[in-house]
Amino acid sequence: MPLAFRLLKTSSRSAARLGRIFTDHGPVETPVFMPVGTAGSVKAVNPHQLEALGAQMILGNTYHLYLRPGTELLKEAGGLHRFMRWNRPILTDSGGFQVFSLNGIRKLTEEGCVFRSHIDGSSHVFTPENNVDVQRAIGADVVMALDECCPGDADRAYAEKSLRLTQRWLERFAERFEATSPLYGHDQTFFPIVQGCVYPDLREEAAEHAARFAKVGIAVGGLAVGEPAEKMYEVLDLMSRVLPPDRAHYLMGVGTPENLLEAVSRGIDMFDCVMPCRNARNGVVFTWEGRLSYKAAKHARELDRPLDPECGCYTCRNFSRAYLRHLFNAGELLVHQLATIHNLHFYQDLMARTRAHLRDGDFEDWRDGLLARWGAKKG
Amino acid sequence: MPLAFRLLKTSSRSAARLGRIFTDHGPVETPVFMPVGTAGSVKAVNPHQLEALGAQMILGNTYHLYLRPGTELLKEAGGLHRFMRWNRPILTDSGGFQVFSLNGIRKLTEEGCVFRSHIDGSSHVFTPENNVDVQRAIGADVVMALDECCPGDADRAYAEKSLRLTQRWLERFAERFEATSPLYGHDQTFFPIVQGCVYPDLREEAAEHAARFAKVGIAVGGLAVGEPAEKMYEVLDLMSRVLPPDRAHYLMGVGTPENLLEAVSRGIDMFDCVMPCRNARNGVVFTWEGRLSYKAAKHARELDRPLDPECGCYTCRNFSRAYLRHLFNAGELLVHQLATIHNLHFYQDLMARTRAHLRDGDFEDWRDGLLARWGAKKG
Repeated sequence: MPLAFRLLKTSSRSAARLGRIFTDHGPVETPVFMPVGTAGSVKAVNPHQLEALGAQMILGNTYHLYLRPGTELLKEAGGLHRFMRWNRPILTDSGGFQVFSLNGIRKLTEEGCVFRSHIDGSSHVFTPENNVDVQRAIGADVVMALDECCPGDADRAYAEKSLRLTQRWLERFAERFEATSPLYGHDQTFFPIVQGCVYPDLREEAAEHAARFAKVGIAVGGLAVGEPAEKMYEVLDLMSRVLPPDRAHYLMGVGTPENLLEAVSRGIDMFDCVMPCRNARNGVVFTWEGRLSYKAAKHARELDRPLDPECGCYTCRNFSRAYLRHLFNAGELLVHQLATIHNLHFYQDLMARTRAHLRDGDFEDWRDGLLARWGAKKG
Repeated sequence: MPLAFRLLKTSSRSAARLGRIFTDHGPVETPVFMPVGTAGSVKAVNPHQLEALGAQMILGNTYHLYLRPGTELLKEAGGLHRFMRWNRPILTDSGGFQVFSLNGIRKLTEEGCVFRSHIDGSSHVFTPENNVDVQRAIGADVVMALDECCPGDADRAYAEKSLRLTQRWLERFAERFEATSPLYGHDQTFFPIVQGCVYPDLREEAAEHAARFAKVGIAVGGLAVGEPAEKMYEVLDLMSRVLPPDRAHYLMGVGTPENLLEAVSRGIDMFDCVMPCRNARNGVVFTWEGRLSYKAAKHARELDRPLDPECGCYTCRNFSRAYLRHLFNAGELLVHQLATIHNLHFYQDLMARTRAHLRDGDFEDWRDGLLARWGAKKG
């Protein structure tokens, strides 16, 4: 079955949307948050737990998967889904962003980007063409075009030069994608990525160019890379006017619960971020009352209080803050599992409630209440 | 309900026994292997997973729990069962062994043992009396008497001096235990520990003395501390003749699958060991074909083979050796969970099959077949 996006509803009071992505691994209700499974594993939780907490779709990192276990092994395995035993949809990034962010040593040319493995220092190159091949081998349902992720503080000249390269790479990526086929019997689609840094005219032009290649969805890249949140929202305001409404809108690498609600309000349908997993492992969880540093001494005696009394996850149904804090202090591995389950469940629940309120037509009121609640907690 | 042990059957061809321990947290079928939950957590797996893989009873370490989270918090929590959400039976050691093994700085006197916390260097003392109080606060179903674990290479004079101290401590421990009550509404019992190093006359005398205090069970300590396996089996041969047959026999800190089968054959009913958990995290699993270093390069392409084709655990039902090896190589936290689930399941399965063969009367044949199979693999 060909991959497709169906827009189900747009709010009358904001650009927020309700939609559904159809894939050969099942449907995905949007807005959706995708947990990050960097190297074939969402850290500290198993696929059964991921399904139980409501994850509809996960993200894999092409840079990591390409280096380890490598495309040959993934081909032998019949693709990433079978290798990691995840039977729901997967999206992979192109690896371009991680080549730029993880690796000092690199060379950017018209042809592609040369990078060194952080594992063994070996030299590799991603071109738009071989990047298609790598992502065909991984076999994600949705794959991302190779782009240059322009730094958030780039001047206009650099941003424009970078955008032109991204656009030429997109054309080459699309050509290779059309010339090749999925390897494992399920359909694949690719999303073009809108760059252009914080410059509205570049962003608008980039969106128009990218839209020509967007069959199912289109991504907004180069945000949440250090610029103020207001700048990001400005770009998203613009995007909400220029992105094709009948395509899924994916905001890459974002973000906090607040970011998600603000971006949904601006027409974004898909998200991914390492934040819920990473924060969980570092002692911070998200709750309906705001962030909670569960490792703090003040929680040491909270024996009857779960991380979040409003939460129905396995962790909150069973364990106290005092127990979680103890596990963290004692360096017990179990804390990674339990805190990750909670944070991912919170993100899934946030998106599920977002969808429910969009259906009911009161998303904006609910959102405003939450943002006020969380904003008050920040001070 | 008072804790009790019932001997159900003794093999006609060895000293192997089938039994049942009754506790307020449910029955325990013996022979039983107890996973080690050092500081209120069996490393990398949650209580639901532990139950699912068949763990009947777990062990907690008093030394660790006393230092962190501490007895005051455990009292507030209503005991360890409630704190860690484990509703099946628990056994705690006295902490004496870990004071000796983890800590260079200590002083041993008639009164008790002075030790320093490995966490903050603070000074503490365990006496037989306060050790009862600490284990009452933790609230395990079965608690262990405070003893001195004599080194395996001690000379006879030291071994005898050490045994006398252990015996005086046992008398004081028993007195305090009788003078106090469980704190959380479920019954507790204590097991005395037979020491005496590798000296048969000391061991025999120790067993007779300890047996006077054994209401439900009796433990054999001071083995698997560096002596050859044959020495251990010699002591266990002796124990099989002198331990009271109507009490549960617990061999502390043992061991490999081979050790378990040999010890069951000598009348041992209960075991604990960190080995299945620790080996799992270090890249080694136990299988019905013998040990497997799943991190080895030769397993890199075993995409259709689980850790153990004979195993029915979650890990073996879902994941390949190639995937486990990849997770280990990539340093992914999930490998700890998956490999621990497998190894603990293997130990539970080994004990479950042991019990089944004891019921059927062919334990010794089955054991010999397994030992031959594993012995052949060692060469």
